Amino acid sequence: DVSFDPKEHQHLRYNPLRDSWVLVSAHRMKRPWAGQVERPPEEHIPRYDPNNPLCPGNKRANGKGNPDYDSTFVFENDFPALQPDAPDTGSDQDPLFQSKAARGVCKVMCFHPWSDITLPLMKKEEVVKVIDKWAELVEELGTIYPWVQIFENKGAMMGCSNPHPHCQVWASNFLPNEPALSDRCQRAYYQKHGEPMLLQYAKREAEKKERVVVESSDWLAVVPYWATWPYQTLLLPRRHVLRISDLTTEEREGLAAIMKRLLTKYDNLFEVSFPYSMGWHGAPTGPYLKEDNSHWQLHAHYYPPLLRSATVKKFMVGYEMLAQEQRDLTPEQVIHLCTCVHTEQRT
Amino acid sequence: DVSFDPKEHQHLRYNPLRDSWVLVSAHRMKRPWAGQVERPPEEHIPRYDPNNPLCPGNKRANGKGNPDYDSTFVFENDFPALQPDAPDTGSDQDPLFQSKAARGVCKVMCFHPWSDITLPLMKKEEVVKVIDKWAELVEELGTIYPWVQIFENKGAMMGCSNPHPHCQVWASNFLPNEPALSDRCQRAYYQKHGEPMLLQYAKREAEKKERVVVESSDWLAVVPYWATWPYQTLLLPRRHVLRISDLTTEEREGLAAIMKRLLTKYDNLFEVSFPYSMGWHGAPTGPYLKEDNSHWQLHAHYYPPLLRSATVKKFMVGYEMLAQEQRDLTPEQVIHLCTCVHTEQRT
Ligand SMILES: O=P(O)(O)O[C@H]1O[C@H](CO)[C@@H](O)[C@H](O)[C@H]1O
Ligand SMILES: O=P(O)(O)O[C@H]1O[C@H](CO)[C@@H](O)[C@H](O)[C@H]1O
Repeated sequence: DVSFDPKEHQHLRYNPLRDSWVLVSAHRMKRPWAGQVERPPEEHIPRYDPNNPLCPGNKRANGKGNPDYDSTFVFENDFPALQPDAPDTGSDQDPLFQSKAARGVCKVMCFHPWSDITLPLMKKEEVVKVIDKWAELVEELGTIYPWVQIFENKGAMMGCSNPHPHCQVWASNFLPNEPALSDRCQRAYYQKHGEPMLLQYAKREAEKKERVVVESSDWLAVVPYWATWPYQTLLLPRRHVLRISDLTTEEREGLAAIMKRLLTKYDNLFEVSFPYSMGWHGAPTGPYLKEDNSHWQLHAHYYPPLLRSATVKKFMVGYEMLAQEQRDLTPEQVIHLCTCVHTEQRT
Repeated sequence: DVSFDPKEHQHLRYNPLRDSWVLVSAHRMKRPWAGQVERPPEEHIPRYDPNNPLCPGNKRANGKGNPDYDSTFVFENDFPALQPDAPDTGSDQDPLFQSKAARGVCKVMCFHPWSDITLPLMKKEEVVKVIDKWAELVEELGTIYPWVQIFENKGAMMGCSNPHPHCQVWASNFLPNEPALSDRCQRAYYQKHGEPMLLQYAKREAEKKERVVVESSDWLAVVPYWATWPYQTLLLPRRHVLRISDLTTEEREGLAAIMKRLLTKYDNLFEVSFPYSMGWHGAPTGPYLKEDNSHWQLHAHYYPPLLRSATVKKFMVGYEMLAQEQRDLTPEQVIHLCTCVHTEQRT
């Protein structure tokens, strides 16, 4: 009998946050790649571009002018997917044709006045200001809305059409699918095991040390055991924290530091400004503020598209869309690659 | 009070096959696009390329030679994600670190000996041969395996690395996430309403005629009410059919005809060989063959990536990955675009 080797033998791993499985077929990395090659990220971005609607002092599509900001800057998305005043749909109650009103707001948040900088290259104090603003927006929009989604699409490969460092904040009058699922899973785990799932998970990973990318006294970033994207990471505090607005001053400083380390590792991996989509998940807000959310633990997901190099991404296509997610290297192999990198900081 | 207009007012629509919601924000199409532009699909593909491992008579990566085939041709994937003999994982029972053995087979199926042809350009009789082979593989692999996933990744944009017309067939010893979810949803609907969900759905859409792309006496293709991808379609028989292998000779001919019409519309839309991932979902097999699967209805999903033109795709990124899928035009608007196209057949 052959004994099991995760690098050689395909297997399934369970994602307890989504109650689903991922197929891990590490031996697939051996196949040659003759498919689509992406353009590498743009290298020469001007610090200030008079035509970039995100730069300080410039005019945006709706004719409004940006202030001459010198830190973060938040404004309403000029083409919002969610608006506060959509009418009711008058759904006909047919179970096959159900609709519901969707209301909310979409904001854009610039991280810094310079277009040629990214979070890992910003000063720690500047990243703390970004975190403070995230916390402020969750607090403010969370008074009414049940869900405030902070997310960053970084790089043209991730549909980002502006190189200026920024993220988006979409607040909605509904709990979207992904947080609704993760709320259910975390609640069921808490009821069964009496401790928040991700708090237990962080402890176990910190002990095992097989999938840890970076850690500090307050924070931990791991390639989760159930990662679907090749270089996916999960960033979370070691203390039980429900929402980003609950972080202490020290925890925000620790977060700025660990984000800089994580993102520098990403940039170093293929020696390119690493593309990804990332976002924060914390306990729901609005009407949920009055409920017990002890099963929740604040965390951020990073989903980078790359697989083999700066220009060859992982295609989540046929089998993945129709059957199940599949990955071509194990999370433990990724850690190995991450620790091989050259320097810890690019600047 | 403003009355609801789906083209103007964002709203949520329910997907009963996945028990989830999609955010429809049609007014987002108005925003200008300054983001990534894809390379258009390759136009000059040689009919026979001595270096293409999928062409008749050529050698593949493992040194084996292809026969001089003149219709469909099936072989084992040289870099399979699933193999029949993977050992057990010996999972440690920890709820946060669960794994399972995954076993199966991966096959590749060429549709035609020519590299410069696609399904819509093939003769109807040639497409029938493809369908017959699909049915044969489901029958054959389905004797042991609970799930046989037929899927086609078409175009470099969908991770397809070989222009030769082909699909893949992956059979597994487990029910993957997507069919497991759709099995649960269809079962619950059947128990509640006494009729298969998708059979009822096909009837209602055929009456409503608001989202029908092409139809015939036996088949229907619609942009589903809950479509997430801009030009997503659902193709299904009007009769209650569990699996592709249950289709009659006439139904297979009807399927070949409607596939040709649907794919010709796709090609005409942006005047380009339309990229997509597609696949078949039917009642599970293997051990499930002995169970009652009346809640199932055979169907194919088409997921094309394009949004605005042959080179501007829809990015399912930050908000979609972390919160909920969002679309930028209504399914009803898509139908309008589909019927505006030039000719019904390119050849
Ligand atoms: O099997 P192929 O064509 O080499 O690979 C393609 O389809 C697979 C199944 O959807 C994906 O896992 C790969 O990412 C994709 O590149
Ligand atoms: O809002 P943006 O940057 O214009 O658009 C980008 O992010 C959105 C939210 O993830 C997506 O819906 C779009 O497809 C993507 O291009």
